[in-house]
Amino acid sequence: MHAPRDSAERIRDTLTRLDTERDLWLATSHPTHGPHQIPLWFAWDGTALWMCTSAASVVARNLREDPRARLSLPDTTDVVLLQGEAHLYPAADAPPEATTFTTKFAWNPNTEDPPYVYLRIQPQTVRAWRGVPELRGRVVMRGGVWVE
Amino acid sequence: MHAPRDSAERIRDTLTRLDTERDLWLATSHPTHGPHQIPLWFAWDGTALWMCTSAASVVARNLREDPRARLSLPDTTDVVLLQGEAHLYPAADAPPEATTFTTKFAWNPNTEDPPYVYLRIQPQTVRAWRGVPELRGRVVMRGGVWVE
Repeated sequence: MHAPRDSAERIRDTLTRLDTERDLWLATSHPTHGPHQIPLWFAWDGTALWMCTSAASVVARNLREDPRARLSLPDTTDVVLLQGEAHLYPAADAPPEATTFTTKFAWNPNTEDPPYVYLRIQPQTVRAWRGVPELRGRVVMRGGVWVE
Repeated sequence: MHAPRDSAERIRDTLTRLDTERDLWLATSHPTHGPHQIPLWFAWDGTALWMCTSAASVVARNLREDPRARLSLPDTTDVVLLQGEAHLYPAADAPPEATTFTTKFAWNPNTEDPPYVYLRIQPQTVRAWRGVPELRGRVVMRGGVWVE
């Protein structure tokens, strides 16, 4: 049993995982259709998460209606939960930071047909914990600021 | 590269994982507060998933307001996504099937204070796929019936 990590250590671990992992679970909701959850590729540019999905997908439809999102790295024993609002950009007209995504996955959706959109989510709240001993102190970002 | 599994094989694999795995990601939503996602222990009784959470949790609050839920086994490369509506039971007054949960985790929340509630979710839709080659045919339960 390790001692619970302090906030600085949780932040370092979280940033390493955002830099190195590939997938997350994205949860969105829609006022009529309710909750939705899917796995998506993501890339972290140091400030925000970038994902990509069909412009006609349920995810894109939901986020246009309600931009609030929850995102989780897959591991349920080493939890990293992020929360923020999504901005959507047509893949054909993406800002330069989107290259974080295209470089990581060696795939550029800008000419896909039917069209894709990028989702950019800058986390405002981040929680990180490994089991019950780390529940206390799990909020490592609040109001968009890392809590050292 | 394996050939895409047929529906019967996906159902067998899904049932094995529901019997043997411990955690899932539960996504709920609230008309005002939006989407929510957390990891929870689950037990499968052959028909429904049983989970347990504090009666005062965000999850319990959301499901009282909107019973619709999405549940995913953690692995993003071997996806099992379930969808159904939650029924809540006070842990102090749980139906017999809840023993599936208490037996699996050797923990009975019936005397916890503050109180716990069981969540019972009988899936109506289940999707199972391993990557793009299996996107076709991913719906293995529809309207609560396994699609063989």
